[in-house]
Amino acid sequence: MSPLAPELDTLLGSRRDGHGLPRAFYHNDALYALEMQKIWYGGWLFAGFAFEMPKPGDFLTFTVDSTPVLLIRDDQGEVRAFHNVCRHRGTQLCRTDAGHVRAIVCPYHSWTYSRQGDLIACQGMHDGVDKSALGLRRLHAEVCAGLIYVSLSEAPPDFAPLRAEFEAAARPQGFDRAKIARITDYDVESNWKLVWENNRECFHCVGRHPQYVKANFDVYEEEYASDAIRQKMAAAVERTQSKWALQGIAITHTHGGLAPFPDPDHDLWFAADRTVLVEGFDTESMDGQRVAPLMGDYRDADVGVLRMRSMPNFWVHASCDHAVAARLLPAGPRTTKVRAYWLVRDDAREGEDYQLDQLLPFWQLTNEQDWDICKWQQKGVDSIGYQPGPLSQRKEYNVDAFIRWYLKQMHSGGRDAAARPLTRVA
Amino acid sequence: MSPLAPELDTLLGSRRDGHGLPRAFYHNDALYALEMQKIWYGGWLFAGFAFEMPKPGDFLTFTVDSTPVLLIRDDQGEVRAFHNVCRHRGTQLCRTDAGHVRAIVCPYHSWTYSRQGDLIACQGMHDGVDKSALGLRRLHAEVCAGLIYVSLSEAPPDFAPLRAEFEAAARPQGFDRAKIARITDYDVESNWKLVWENNRECFHCVGRHPQYVKANFDVYEEEYASDAIRQKMAAAVERTQSKWALQGIAITHTHGGLAPFPDPDHDLWFAADRTVLVEGFDTESMDGQRVAPLMGDYRDADVGVLRMRSMPNFWVHASCDHAVAARLLPAGPRTTKVRAYWLVRDDAREGEDYQLDQLLPFWQLTNEQDWDICKWQQKGVDSIGYQPGPLSQRKEYNVDAFIRWYLKQMHSGGRDAAARPLTRVA
Amino acid sequence: MSPLAPELDTLLGSRRDGHGLPRAFYHNDALYALEMQKIWYGGWLFAGFAFEMPKPGDFLTFTVDSTPVLLIRDDQGEVRAFHNVCRHRGTQLCRTDAGHVRAIVCPYHSWTYSRQGDLIACQGMHDGVDKSALGLRRLHAEVCAGLIYVSLSEAPPDFAPLRAEFEAAARPQGFDRAKIARITDYDVESNWKLVWENNRECFHCVGRHPQYVKANFDVYEEEYASDAIRQKMAAAVERTQSKWALQGIAITHTHGGLAPFPDPDHDLWFAADRTVLVEGFDTESMDGQRVAPLMGDYRDADVGVLRMRSMPNFWVHASCDHAVAARLLPAGPRTTKVRAYWLVRDDAREGEDYQLDQLLPFWQLTNEQDWDICKWQQKGVDSIGYQPGPLSQRKEYNVDAFIRWYLKQMHSGGRDAAARPLTRVA
Repeated sequence: MSPLAPELDTLLGSRRDGHGLPRAFYHNDALYALEMQKIWYGGWLFAGFAFEMPKPGDFLTFTVDSTPVLLIRDDQGEVRAFHNVCRHRGTQLCRTDAGHVRAIVCPYHSWTYSRQGDLIACQGMHDGVDKSALGLRRLHAEVCAGLIYVSLSEAPPDFAPLRAEFEAAARPQGFDRAKIARITDYDVESNWKLVWENNRECFHCVGRHPQYVKANFDVYEEEYASDAIRQKMAAAVERTQSKWALQGIAITHTHGGLAPFPDPDHDLWFAADRTVLVEGFDTESMDGQRVAPLMGDYRDADVGVLRMRSMPNFWVHASCDHAVAARLLPAGPRTTKVRAYWLVRDDAREGEDYQLDQLLPFWQLTNEQDWDICKWQQKGVDSIGYQPGPLSQRKEYNVDAFIRWYLKQMHSGGRDAAARPLTRVA
Repeated sequence: MSPLAPELDTLLGSRRDGHGLPRAFYHNDALYALEMQKIWYGGWLFAGFAFEMPKPGDFLTFTVDSTPVLLIRDDQGEVRAFHNVCRHRGTQLCRTDAGHVRAIVCPYHSWTYSRQGDLIACQGMHDGVDKSALGLRRLHAEVCAGLIYVSLSEAPPDFAPLRAEFEAAARPQGFDRAKIARITDYDVESNWKLVWENNRECFHCVGRHPQYVKANFDVYEEEYASDAIRQKMAAAVERTQSKWALQGIAITHTHGGLAPFPDPDHDLWFAADRTVLVEGFDTESMDGQRVAPLMGDYRDADVGVLRMRSMPNFWVHASCDHAVAARLLPAGPRTTKVRAYWLVRDDAREGEDYQLDQLLPFWQLTNEQDWDICKWQQKGVDSIGYQPGPLSQRKEYNVDAFIRWYLKQMHSGGRDAAARPLTRVA
Repeated sequence: MSPLAPELDTLLGSRRDGHGLPRAFYHNDALYALEMQKIWYGGWLFAGFAFEMPKPGDFLTFTVDSTPVLLIRDDQGEVRAFHNVCRHRGTQLCRTDAGHVRAIVCPYHSWTYSRQGDLIACQGMHDGVDKSALGLRRLHAEVCAGLIYVSLSEAPPDFAPLRAEFEAAARPQGFDRAKIARITDYDVESNWKLVWENNRECFHCVGRHPQYVKANFDVYEEEYASDAIRQKMAAAVERTQSKWALQGIAITHTHGGLAPFPDPDHDLWFAADRTVLVEGFDTESMDGQRVAPLMGDYRDADVGVLRMRSMPNFWVHASCDHAVAARLLPAGPRTTKVRAYWLVRDDAREGEDYQLDQLLPFWQLTNEQDWDICKWQQKGVDSIGYQPGPLSQRKEYNVDAFIRWYLKQMHSGGRDAAARPLTRVA
């Protein structure tokens, strides 16, 4: 009811190259509604892990803005996705985050859908109701390397490239032979884009994430690092290179700083890479000591960190012994629901093979430090005094990439490129 | 400030015959504002019971959306209704749900109104203030069969037909010789129309209201009922028919299923009927046993259930010994305030003549089961995946009738009929 | 995104002379947004007291609607004001109400600003970043008689007239040699204009503020007061007149009723005056007894009450021994944040020189009585039944003045005068 067509082009064009997004992008209701259409209902969303619903009839649910989605393993063992809404009067069907059903029975009038989504019973309806036209509205779903993706679009982007990259990268990690050690749900008081902008740079890590910078080289750019740091990085890469090759895994990001992502110029909305950890760190734990049994195919702790991410709602950091993932879901212009997952190998026993007080702190701290940042940034960008500032050409190239990726999606059908990329300092 | 005239006709016309309402109707702010004008500020609203304000100076208050209303018994013993707002600076006058005053004194500057609504004192104002022009803004009010109705319209619909029907139907029940055993206020997390759609069918009763279906025949349509059920219904009708005649009351709904209501084709926004209960049920209690003394003129428990209702905000189920009423008030597109009333005869003593733990459960359960349904239906119809489904021609003819009644009010001044009625299965 | 230009003139013109404001002014989002622009971001806002930030590096913060402001004492001891937002990514900088810093360091990426607001470090940015263009966005700030004022406008109104008046009036009170005995923050559930309309008349004092009317003559207009009251007022004025002259202070409001304020016809948005108290009241305390040591230059308790106020967000009542101030900040159309300050002389010791249970009640009661009034008035003016009523020509001339001042600001650039003033009864 409030199309912003005439003003949209002006707004989208108002972003200055190399700078942050203008104020309106972080709280305007009409822009938020457009983001839902163009990005959240258009692309692929990470929904959960396949091992969360191992058996036929197992289901997961989640809600994108105000749209509830249902994932269910069908009788053939395939993961299917549907709008979690009865075709009769529109009632939400499954109401818990996860569960198991023999059939999907609407709690209102008992319309009953098979695990394939077919309407199989609707007693009390008149004769002549065409059941075949009243199955659950199906959504595209894909499972890849143990991750479940859903798209609310009728014609989602090609999934094959993500599959190719993630399956190759994630195979040794064994996301398909994992289990959840802990899920924590957060209501982050900020626009979802601030969460991503925060995630896309490690400029803030020195000051905000003391535990993180001890383990990772992200904060250093090779060009600017001290000789000592440069040597440490080179040594770490050299040490692991041959060893990893034996295990069939490869370092794919050997430099300091974050690997470039996303890439609006090549329409790359997903990426995976593996980096080394600082000497003395076997895993992303507080002291670098392993906190759980080796996952997947790993025979050795020295595998660095596998990092994967996809726009607009997923990232994971996977060490030799555990992985920590995040799933983002928008819930209004100023609220983002984030689910944090801690994964360990499926046969690990809490209290014996791993202790939560050793497993959780590294990313619990890192996450909560970031949500606090995002909250205060939201308060700032809501100000009439906020003006987008310059992004660091050394450290915020990925924030620029994110903003350009975002603007390109919002423009889709329109201009080709949203902006000139940040001149990255070589 | 946001008229939706150009889009309104399109929206109102977008409902498909025999199906539910499109998504926008359940959350759009502009549609909600229009509903306030066309329906809530246009028709007659049930406000409460006359016995709640027996003496001159007794008052009741309630709020429709953001408009506070005051009912007061004047010095002649008549019930008057006013905008509950001072004519001076606009302060809300009476602030409790009910009370007693000698005069209505504004707590701000002590402007004082008689119980007739006349401004009788405004000390501190300048000479020449025309008190006669500054009485409380009066609203139409009617009392009928012990029920108080108010209209916020300057030219409300004719009240005489409702009076004729309700007085005849309700006379033996004695709503004017009753008292309140319990009031419970609910904030139902759904649009007010979902509350009505839920109320207008008993399709859901089998699965959701086990206590209700034991007592009532509503879930059965004669055409589809088993022979056993059909015989039970016929026997119940026959058993009571002659007996009731002696008491001067009549069964007016002898079939299974809900009596048709509302009737947009004949502009019927109120209805009353009496139905039999299942053998063994003297009243709508958990075990069918009486839970309070007989009400009104009843000399025998076997009087079935008197049901009355009026659009847009009232219904009551009255058994021989108690009655349970509901008053709906909208408080935004996604919130409906429902007041549930349990009535017994006025001289019944709690703990002696009735026990709350016997009186309350039947409708407490039924109400709360319904509010839960409505909440989850709201979550579903908020989804972009919601598409209105087909209504059962056997069981949801009244949901169709409600929707067509609603669309006709929204169209008023425009098209004659909103849609073709559901083909009801004969 | 929702300009209301076409409707604005109609709305602004819809106020009837001598009456309250129409309904829309108290809850409409677009009008609220325009008020922010025209009034809150245009004029001078009281921010706090200079003694709250005595030393270089001391800071105060507050938020106007959604715009955070920072006040800091710079290295030269001057008070500076800035948008409390980092020039890099827009994060809110200082997060507590008050504090002390050596430099303003953004908690996100450690951009560092001097106390003068200059960007002095932004390690991690690329070479060539022009630090000189990235200092904090400065706001106009003034300190006068110990009060700090800030304007979010680039071209605020002339501050010199306020300074002249307040410095003369406030000198003996010693706001610059005071300290805070108590701060209480209130979220008043009403539009900010209702808070002012309440403040601008003492018509309601008789009924609502029993403690207040014992101490003050405000409720009486000379023309209408009884002979007894008139003699009491004359005696009080005569008694103090010569005595005050010796101390160099003057009664400036010798009549009953409130001194006229604001004055839209002469664009007066601030005022100060001194009035006598009722015989037996040395101060605005419950029993009239002094509750703290004499403030400022006072040598005698008999100094009446100094009252100062400025649109749109400040007033103070200062007795011989303490002062109570209020700072208003809007937080949406139906919420006003009010900070109440109780001040005493800076060397007074709690528990010895003053007791909070003697100091607080007079204004705690008066404030909370008023916030309750405002809440219920908001509920009333939200009603479709609200129609603006006539203002008392005896007692509400200042409400009329406020409304006309308000309309004139909203019109600025347009019509000269918003309305004809209330005919004040002579």
